[in-house]
Amino acid sequence: MSTHEARLAALREQLKADRLDGFVVPLTDEHMSEYVGSYAQRLAWLTGFQGSAGSAVVLPEEAAIFTDGRYTLQVREQVDGRHWSYQSVPETSIADWLKDHAPEGGRIGYDPWLHTKDWVKRAREALAEKGTELVAVRRNPIDAVWAERPEPSKAKLIVHPDKYAGKSSAAKRQEMADWLREQKADAAVLSALDSIAWTFNVRGQDVEHTPVALSFALVNEDGTADLFVESEKIGDDVRQHLGNGVRVHERSEFERYLGSLSGKTVIADPERAVAAIFEALEGAGAKVVQKRDPSVLPRAVKNEAEIGGHRSAQARDGAALTRFLQWISIEAPKGNVDELLAVAKLQEFRQQSGDLRDTSFDTISGAGLNGAIVHYRVTEETNRPLEINSLYLVDSGGQYPDGTTDVTRTVAIGTPTAEMRDHFTRVLKGHIAIARAVFPEGTRGSQLDTLARQYLWQAGLDYAHGTGHGVGSYLSVHEGPQRISPVGSSQSGGDEPLRAGMFLSNEPGYYKTGEYGIRVENLVLVEPRQIEGAEKKMLGFETLTFAPIDPSLIEPNLLSPEEREWLNAYHARVVEVVGPQLEPEVLAWLEEQCRPV
Amino acid sequence: MSTHEARLAALREQLKADRLDGFVVPLTDEHMSEYVGSYAQRLAWLTGFQGSAGSAVVLPEEAAIFTDGRYTLQVREQVDGRHWSYQSVPETSIADWLKDHAPEGGRIGYDPWLHTKDWVKRAREALAEKGTELVAVRRNPIDAVWAERPEPSKAKLIVHPDKYAGKSSAAKRQEMADWLREQKADAAVLSALDSIAWTFNVRGQDVEHTPVALSFALVNEDGTADLFVESEKIGDDVRQHLGNGVRVHERSEFERYLGSLSGKTVIADPERAVAAIFEALEGAGAKVVQKRDPSVLPRAVKNEAEIGGHRSAQARDGAALTRFLQWISIEAPKGNVDELLAVAKLQEFRQQSGDLRDTSFDTISGAGLNGAIVHYRVTEETNRPLEINSLYLVDSGGQYPDGTTDVTRTVAIGTPTAEMRDHFTRVLKGHIAIARAVFPEGTRGSQLDTLARQYLWQAGLDYAHGTGHGVGSYLSVHEGPQRISPVGSSQSGGDEPLRAGMFLSNEPGYYKTGEYGIRVENLVLVEPRQIEGAEKKMLGFETLTFAPIDPSLIEPNLLSPEEREWLNAYHARVVEVVGPQLEPEVLAWLEEQCRPV
Repeated sequence: MSTHEARLAALREQLKADRLDGFVVPLTDEHMSEYVGSYAQRLAWLTGFQGSAGSAVVLPEEAAIFTDGRYTLQVREQVDGRHWSYQSVPETSIADWLKDHAPEGGRIGYDPWLHTKDWVKRAREALAEKGTELVAVRRNPIDAVWAERPEPSKAKLIVHPDKYAGKSSAAKRQEMADWLREQKADAAVLSALDSIAWTFNVRGQDVEHTPVALSFALVNEDGTADLFVESEKIGDDVRQHLGNGVRVHERSEFERYLGSLSGKTVIADPERAVAAIFEALEGAGAKVVQKRDPSVLPRAVKNEAEIGGHRSAQARDGAALTRFLQWISIEAPKGNVDELLAVAKLQEFRQQSGDLRDTSFDTISGAGLNGAIVHYRVTEETNRPLEINSLYLVDSGGQYPDGTTDVTRTVAIGTPTAEMRDHFTRVLKGHIAIARAVFPEGTRGSQLDTLARQYLWQAGLDYAHGTGHGVGSYLSVHEGPQRISPVGSSQSGGDEPLRAGMFLSNEPGYYKTGEYGIRVENLVLVEPRQIEGAEKKMLGFETLTFAPIDPSLIEPNLLSPEEREWLNAYHARVVEVVGPQLEPEVLAWLEEQCRPV
Repeated sequence: MSTHEARLAALREQLKADRLDGFVVPLTDEHMSEYVGSYAQRLAWLTGFQGSAGSAVVLPEEAAIFTDGRYTLQVREQVDGRHWSYQSVPETSIADWLKDHAPEGGRIGYDPWLHTKDWVKRAREALAEKGTELVAVRRNPIDAVWAERPEPSKAKLIVHPDKYAGKSSAAKRQEMADWLREQKADAAVLSALDSIAWTFNVRGQDVEHTPVALSFALVNEDGTADLFVESEKIGDDVRQHLGNGVRVHERSEFERYLGSLSGKTVIADPERAVAAIFEALEGAGAKVVQKRDPSVLPRAVKNEAEIGGHRSAQARDGAALTRFLQWISIEAPKGNVDELLAVAKLQEFRQQSGDLRDTSFDTISGAGLNGAIVHYRVTEETNRPLEINSLYLVDSGGQYPDGTTDVTRTVAIGTPTAEMRDHFTRVLKGHIAIARAVFPEGTRGSQLDTLARQYLWQAGLDYAHGTGHGVGSYLSVHEGPQRISPVGSSQSGGDEPLRAGMFLSNEPGYYKTGEYGIRVENLVLVEPRQIEGAEKKMLGFETLTFAPIDPSLIEPNLLSPEEREWLNAYHARVVEVVGPQLEPEVLAWLEEQCRPV
């Protein structure tokens, strides 16, 4: 019996003991995080799935795993199809699937610390139709059978200095306090880890790649705050930085504290706070008002210090990536490089550039057909050489104290086929269409998504992921609320109006299963645009990422004069920003790559 | 005291007598129609507003009229600002406005035959917050004070022959019956007038420009139907056409009939059936299931006979419009034409082309600054001459037994300015982007909207209306469910996936208040696209409307090679389709207009 088969069997035994006819396993943690600490990686432990979005349901005789278009291939490679059925969201939902598969009159368990209130409500209603009951568990049955479950991290918090944050925590909290008084509320719950890191200008080391600390907080209408975090993780520097306005409690005290808020009006975010938080507040007799976490929008709209820091981080990151791409251009055609070596080498170049705290996510290093797996993560088993006459896709980023980067380049090893050049150029045209877009204030990300897809559509092609996500400032590489994605996408955010100061990725792609993958990703900044004769306030994008785009993959005849102009101006800027940091032979290579087309 | 002032005063007296502190006046009728019979034009009678979308609220001391971006100018010209405050939707809603303005603890009346159930629910909840009650009236207080209110039309129904409908009414009802059995329902209510006309293959003459008959219907799970229409409107031909499967009742019997459906499962469409219908069914003890009216999608997806009929109608309509534009090109520069004469002349050309039953809406004939009023309707008071060196915008359509047309052309009288040419060309580029769009099955209209706006946005310009609406087959010129409009638009339909066989308009525009208006509108058919190497089922548009696009307004340097190619191919096709019907001098003019750029 394989490891995952044994774990599934153990969980089923536990469910029987707990008198449950099923259990729902989301990927998230108590903070609705996308990336979670190892102690909370229950879905991966149970199924083997390594993607960043998904969930599962276990019934006595059946089990299903739910993933979106990005993970269609990956889930089939990582999760055993003999024990798990693969389900696609948004085409099916857990609730719909349970309606068809759960035993009539049965009891399906869920952990109220791992689901939103709305999820619980919808799932409960859907199941009620056939008499199936959704039951909150006191203890997660996976934890009961997960013998070697890691402890939550004890890593220390670090101060995020004002020179990078651009605004003190006290000032941020004062603005929230003003807003709370407007709302006639006493406090707001912050439970998203990046909300807490941003609000208190602290960073943590509890989750790989995302510098956050496991914690909860309430900000009060007098500008003070209550922060729930294990006290051993707070050193003197952080305690001094937090100051008198922040009362530090043990993390384990959070639920009890919520229970003491009888009679208070408390704001909680139904998308970011889990069901258990609402239940604790309502159980205590607090008046709960559902509103968006007040840190979300000010965090998304970057200030001058954050934008300046990001530019510095990008310049460094661009130099590291350029060195890496030059190295690939020499070594890969000799047959000296495989995916794992490439990851290590890129990491090395980033470290050399200085100030690297972490990568911002696991590098996607996809040679040939592995490039077609949208969120591929190389392992010893899947590791492939970068072969001659193939494509290599590398999506990576760095966590620097002054900024978070995220960049994808696709390069040809040897000579690409005409089809590869055609499809790469269509992806690039979509990328340029976003980069060049001008749009009125109030425009939502979903209104721009089609600009990125139009040239692929003309050839009957598409990609099964969004076009862009928000990015934090030395924080989450995927940060809400904004997103560039199609209407009706499984990921929310496309309906958020874009505002000057927001960071977004611009990353159209194309994936040919079993053959190759293409993606071109830069980060962009939403900026005001002054246009002569304009009748509305207009916005546009400034591209923030600097690294060459492989000219051997570009078919210049497919580019319009405006697209050529954009590409040449971009490449000139890459040489300008990155060039001065480079060694002569790398600079020479970069200049060759960046020659006008 | 002006007429409308006196009417407002009379309504306020009536409200006092009815013990109401306010009343809501929508534009629609008992069928949620966009265009309503004269008997139901309460909003126009009360306020003077002539647009096709809007609503009003009357309080003892205040009154407000609510319109969307298309009517911003028009409402200010037609409705007296001394008595009415102008409100924009979707920025404000009636419920929001009432929350701020209605007397606390007051009673606000509404007519349950003129609102959806969801509207009533939302408004009731919003008002409840301040203790204001929303009260259904038994008799509409406007009708009580509207002395000369017209009687509902008594015009006879006419048969819509199978050769145009492409499918018999019995076959349509059988498909609905199969669906009803699948849904385990006994019957579906049809209350939208175009749903009834389509289902029974009949047309009516009760509403100007839309060939529908005032009626209600239920289709039953055995394929029979109950049709509620005044019996004097049904001649022998229609009675025979309807056959034994359709029981005809008086229209006044409808509410009582609903009251007899105790224990039945009845499907009603919450977007199309008014609140009173739900109340009658629920009051009777029927089980009401909310689903979309089953005629909506099959009506929107045209069959071969409907598409063929539409092509014939378009060829005729294109010839009429071409003759009109040629006449304008000769007479307007002489100073011989004004907006009203133009309307009459266009009507004459359409009648000459044969088979015209009606125009499909009031022709928008906008000279100079009147062209900037998006849904302008010329009157004796507003009538303007077509002056030299100005633009003229004409948006019009015909109701033919084989199809409904809708087309807009903007032409220069004399010499246009460089700005007019620039902005016209940007509008045209957007029009061409939609016409050339290729997209995967499942794409929603809102995903295409930005393609039409992008070139205006680049110049800081935009237009405050959607890009396209569905169109009926000898039926409503605005037909749901599909629409090309921005996410979050005040008009629904942008989220409906486009399907092969749907008709849509393609009509971007630009409006400079006080100066001129530009719009280019053709109808298009959604069609499957075979693309070599395509990985998805793809769709595209076939343009169905044929009339020249004024070359004096096109700046060829702003067009890409692909756009020029589209324009030249389109104009060649105009000559091919329309040319053979024309007199020699008109043909010569058309050929000149259609010369390749």
